[in-house]
Amino acid sequence: MMYKGWEGFNLGKWSNDEVNVRDFIQRNYTPYDGDDSFLEGPTEATKKLWDIILDLSKKEREAGGVLKADTEIVSTITSHAPGYLDKDLEKIVGLQTDEPFKRSLQPFGGIKMATQAAEMYGYQVSDEVKTIFTKYRKTHNDGVFDAYTPEMRLARTAHILTGLPDTYGRGRIVGDYRRLALYGVDYLIRHKELDKSLIDGEMFPDKVRDREEIAEQIKALKALKEMAASYGFDISEPAKTAQEAIQALYFGYLAAVKDQNGAAMSIGRNSTFLDIYIERDLRKGLITEKEAQELIDHFIMKLRIVKFMRIQSYNELFSGDPTWVTETIGGMGVDGRSLVTKNSFRVLHTLVNLGPAPEPNLTVLWSKNLPENFKKFCARISIETSSIQYESDDLMRPDMGDDYCIACCVSSMRQGKDMQFFGARANLAKCLLYAINGGADIVTMDKKTGKPLQVSPKFAPITSNEPLNYDEVIEKYTTMMEWLAGLYVNTLNLIHYMHDKYAYEAIEMALHDSKVTRYFATGIAGLSCAVDSLSAIKYAKVTPIRNEFGLVVDYKTEGDFPKYGNNDDRVDEIAVWLVKTFMNMIKKHYTYRESIPTMSILTITSNVVYGKKTGNTPDGRRAGEPLAPGANPMHGRDTNGALASLESVAKLPFDYSRDGISNTFSITPESLGKDED
Amino acid sequence: MMYKGWEGFNLGKWSNDEVNVRDFIQRNYTPYDGDDSFLEGPTEATKKLWDIILDLSKKEREAGGVLKADTEIVSTITSHAPGYLDKDLEKIVGLQTDEPFKRSLQPFGGIKMATQAAEMYGYQVSDEVKTIFTKYRKTHNDGVFDAYTPEMRLARTAHILTGLPDTYGRGRIVGDYRRLALYGVDYLIRHKELDKSLIDGEMFPDKVRDREEIAEQIKALKALKEMAASYGFDISEPAKTAQEAIQALYFGYLAAVKDQNGAAMSIGRNSTFLDIYIERDLRKGLITEKEAQELIDHFIMKLRIVKFMRIQSYNELFSGDPTWVTETIGGMGVDGRSLVTKNSFRVLHTLVNLGPAPEPNLTVLWSKNLPENFKKFCARISIETSSIQYESDDLMRPDMGDDYCIACCVSSMRQGKDMQFFGARANLAKCLLYAINGGADIVTMDKKTGKPLQVSPKFAPITSNEPLNYDEVIEKYTTMMEWLAGLYVNTLNLIHYMHDKYAYEAIEMALHDSKVTRYFATGIAGLSCAVDSLSAIKYAKVTPIRNEFGLVVDYKTEGDFPKYGNNDDRVDEIAVWLVKTFMNMIKKHYTYRESIPTMSILTITSNVVYGKKTGNTPDGRRAGEPLAPGANPMHGRDTNGALASLESVAKLPFDYSRDGISNTFSITPESLGKDED
Repeated sequence: MMYKGWEGFNLGKWSNDEVNVRDFIQRNYTPYDGDDSFLEGPTEATKKLWDIILDLSKKEREAGGVLKADTEIVSTITSHAPGYLDKDLEKIVGLQTDEPFKRSLQPFGGIKMATQAAEMYGYQVSDEVKTIFTKYRKTHNDGVFDAYTPEMRLARTAHILTGLPDTYGRGRIVGDYRRLALYGVDYLIRHKELDKSLIDGEMFPDKVRDREEIAEQIKALKALKEMAASYGFDISEPAKTAQEAIQALYFGYLAAVKDQNGAAMSIGRNSTFLDIYIERDLRKGLITEKEAQELIDHFIMKLRIVKFMRIQSYNELFSGDPTWVTETIGGMGVDGRSLVTKNSFRVLHTLVNLGPAPEPNLTVLWSKNLPENFKKFCARISIETSSIQYESDDLMRPDMGDDYCIACCVSSMRQGKDMQFFGARANLAKCLLYAINGGADIVTMDKKTGKPLQVSPKFAPITSNEPLNYDEVIEKYTTMMEWLAGLYVNTLNLIHYMHDKYAYEAIEMALHDSKVTRYFATGIAGLSCAVDSLSAIKYAKVTPIRNEFGLVVDYKTEGDFPKYGNNDDRVDEIAVWLVKTFMNMIKKHYTYRESIPTMSILTITSNVVYGKKTGNTPDGRRAGEPLAPGANPMHGRDTNGALASLESVAKLPFDYSRDGISNTFSITPESLGKDED
Repeated sequence: MMYKGWEGFNLGKWSNDEVNVRDFIQRNYTPYDGDDSFLEGPTEATKKLWDIILDLSKKEREAGGVLKADTEIVSTITSHAPGYLDKDLEKIVGLQTDEPFKRSLQPFGGIKMATQAAEMYGYQVSDEVKTIFTKYRKTHNDGVFDAYTPEMRLARTAHILTGLPDTYGRGRIVGDYRRLALYGVDYLIRHKELDKSLIDGEMFPDKVRDREEIAEQIKALKALKEMAASYGFDISEPAKTAQEAIQALYFGYLAAVKDQNGAAMSIGRNSTFLDIYIERDLRKGLITEKEAQELIDHFIMKLRIVKFMRIQSYNELFSGDPTWVTETIGGMGVDGRSLVTKNSFRVLHTLVNLGPAPEPNLTVLWSKNLPENFKKFCARISIETSSIQYESDDLMRPDMGDDYCIACCVSSMRQGKDMQFFGARANLAKCLLYAINGGADIVTMDKKTGKPLQVSPKFAPITSNEPLNYDEVIEKYTTMMEWLAGLYVNTLNLIHYMHDKYAYEAIEMALHDSKVTRYFATGIAGLSCAVDSLSAIKYAKVTPIRNEFGLVVDYKTEGDFPKYGNNDDRVDEIAVWLVKTFMNMIKKHYTYRESIPTMSILTITSNVVYGKKTGNTPDGRRAGEPLAPGANPMHGRDTNGALASLESVAKLPFDYSRDGISNTFSITPESLGKDED
């Protein structure tokens, strides 16, 4: 089968009745190692449109954070009539609702949250919608809370498990939106029908579920086609131009954000893919560079205004309401060629044309082998806009190949082939306090008795008032972590079962292979605090201080101790031990849908909230003070310089924290050497 | 814990923090071997109420079958305000909707069917309800058809699998409604909470599902309490009088029929249980026998007017729209005492007080040891009303104990301990034709090609035009049955997964133990036709006649052959072989939720529809003619007398057809001897 949209492309496996975007890219992309001199500024249309957005943004801030909110129409792929910023000027169209900045109503994850979020901004969800989603349509949140065990609820209340995706969409699933441009919807439906037909034989529940899910995916693809048609686009066949390609790709993403209010709605790795279409158009003389940049600017503009209604506690956890529209750029091919194209430049150049912005989260896959010109360009844009995120392609490529993308901030997944069950975090600093106290702390009191709440089973606490013995603490910590790991995994098993049941991501999964690899993404918080506390116990003298219930509520720490973040093996080894130990404990348990357990050390903002719920720690940190973000050393303790700090972090074993390690690292330009002048 | 409602009862295991109705019955019931002379006629109130019903029935017939239908309010346990026939006269209250004879709207099984059923009688389901059940709330029917394989659809279209519960509620689940009277709702909720807490540990999907189901059960119990309260009854505690006991029990059943439009909504084994309450009231002088009979009459009256909206094809299959409100009466205890009480008489006596009626389906568990007086009474009421069904308690008691009931017509289950996944039927007569033709027949033509539809995989057909060879036919029949059994089981696996997912019977299962035994109830149709056909092939000369496609469409049968139903082992052994063989093939497969496969031979009316879809058979039966019902010999072929006919049926192995064997047997009174005069 040959499509008009494929003319001018090198054919191959991808065009031979397969869905294989990587093969298409590899056969067709044009690596670029030149500089940024080809780039064009914004067109008049771009400026006007951006002004409309700036104006709406201002009005939104003045209105208290939300300009308009839907309270009647439940958001689905086809729920809304087309919406525009300025129909005549927009090269890439499509809004989440029928008006820009009008937030959609998304109750499938939970009607309570949808209602609360609306009320927070002075809106009332209609009684009809409330009735439907309480009497007839159960939500993810209701399912989870129906099934939670008391222990799970308690761990949640006590914030030893925090940020669990039980009141919000799990997100972290990245559809391969490129497939829409390359193949068109009909081709994808045909392949999904084939995949469905392959699930046959003994009808175990898993097979019935899988067949139903593919049926839902096909319905979502049909709905997507319908939505595109409402904007005047037929996306049933492969895109014939760059504009059509970007438009089809964006419609897919738009369908996803209409369908899901996920914690991270990342978009994938699209720039180099799209470059192929732009190159073809440029070759044919269909567009100019100015027009190419305009398409990209308009596309990025749309990604910047993706918005959700979120509740207060969500905003606190994430320090705002990020959408994590992560676009992954650059990286190297496994054949040694760089995957940087002119379009990698164009996408980053939107930070100049439209000005800096946190979204989309432009993420460069960094390799020492990237073209020098691109490296320099990235550095300059970083300096000018502080809006680029970098991740190590050299670290991830060996396992992930060269067509993976980043979901949210650091989670790598092969596009259309991997997905993730997002798992938020277990607080290992608080777990250490539980180990010492036998599963209770002063942060969570029982409202009825006024006494500390017993959260874990009542393991033997440390009863002596002598300075803490390291071996005894480690033994108790191990017991407590075993409990926590089990509870954590089981809580996530339950959450993701319900998410699949009540808020299945049909359109996103329609843009995945039907047989995907699932990652079961656990995470830890408070690493450095726990590690320094253990170091203090081992190398200094830490005497527990008890309150009236005999509970250890503080520590008298005498003498110095090595601190994580100084490239000191004595303590860094404790960090390595802790990461490996907890990850191994996670691995012992059943994980939902044959998922592969992973772990991350990557709080970026939520460490603040986690710290609030963590008492005084043996390392001298006061109750309520923030934990360090991700794998960072505790603030101010990495006194041996930046390199030593980075060396400590670098010792953490990636194999045991495959979902990513984050290190928030600020540096003044001066410390890196002289500036440009 | 001692409740006021338990005063005067012998306590025991049942009252010792257990849910154990059988133990309560055994310790408290009063066997009765007297005659029917104590029985009372209807009260004035009873007569007036029954007149209201007769009047409404007449109006209903005049209106074309449905008097009123809800098109706006979706039926749930609490959806409707109280409804009455005549509030002042009714001793037992509660209607499915707010008015008698107003049919409820039950779309959870399928919005299409609910809409069709309404339209059949000139009603239009509201657009709002249609929207909710297409856009937001998926139904059982939609789930099934999303997941069906093409082969399943084909087998369904070809009617080799027929009557599958994919367009209607599966029913066949009998709540132990007695628990409501004996324990009250709060006690049951407490026990369900305990049961839920026991599902802990590694959270496999099954456990999450089980926890959620119990959560739904608890919600249903709370809703039931609310519904009862709307009628002015507090059913949170044990019933204190017979009236309260009957009322609480009936509210439970009413909740079930408000929640589910199941193919058989049987009520259980209640008469002897209720006798205990009536005896207590009589002892205390709280009521007279006249009043006791009035309570039972009013209760039975309510069961007679249970109605559902059903579609044409359902009515055709079941020859009407039976509700199968089966009430199981009598039987023997495992300790040798009869379970017949005065109330067994009272319940049957409603057939006199109110006149004969097909519903509730009063079913006597017959034992040779039943009290003579009761046997005589049953015989007399049978003669007078033709409204009693009999089943062999002696056959079932060894496995089922003495607290089982009958669901629908013959399926036995221990009340509150067993449930059944209803499976309709596989047509073994048609399967034989498929065996001969390699999986196609002339009944189902491909609309596109005009040729016979290939339904099974294309197994080798019989190609010779010589008389059929028995061994060759058996070999091909075995292959075809293997295919059919696998497809049948898998189709049911899929259907019941979806029923659990989209139309879970929360209130009925709330009145079961949380750990129940599940039966996977398959069934066969066309037994005698298939057996006689095989006999003809074996003992006579059967020559195939082919049509223009080479398909065998008829048979020339020369010579005589033994026919099933004449106590002739030569053919009866074929019947035994067939039953055992197909049941063993069923057993090879995975069955949903660790269910135990069973088989029934029990079509009662649907054999007519099955026959319509079955071509000419080698036994001489013409295409379209009815198959025999259940395990019956083919009509008119049992020429050796009634006893020989019954002997043939009795040879069928109950162990291989545990869900029941039906034999529809009419006999003129004269053939049994002299009449009363």
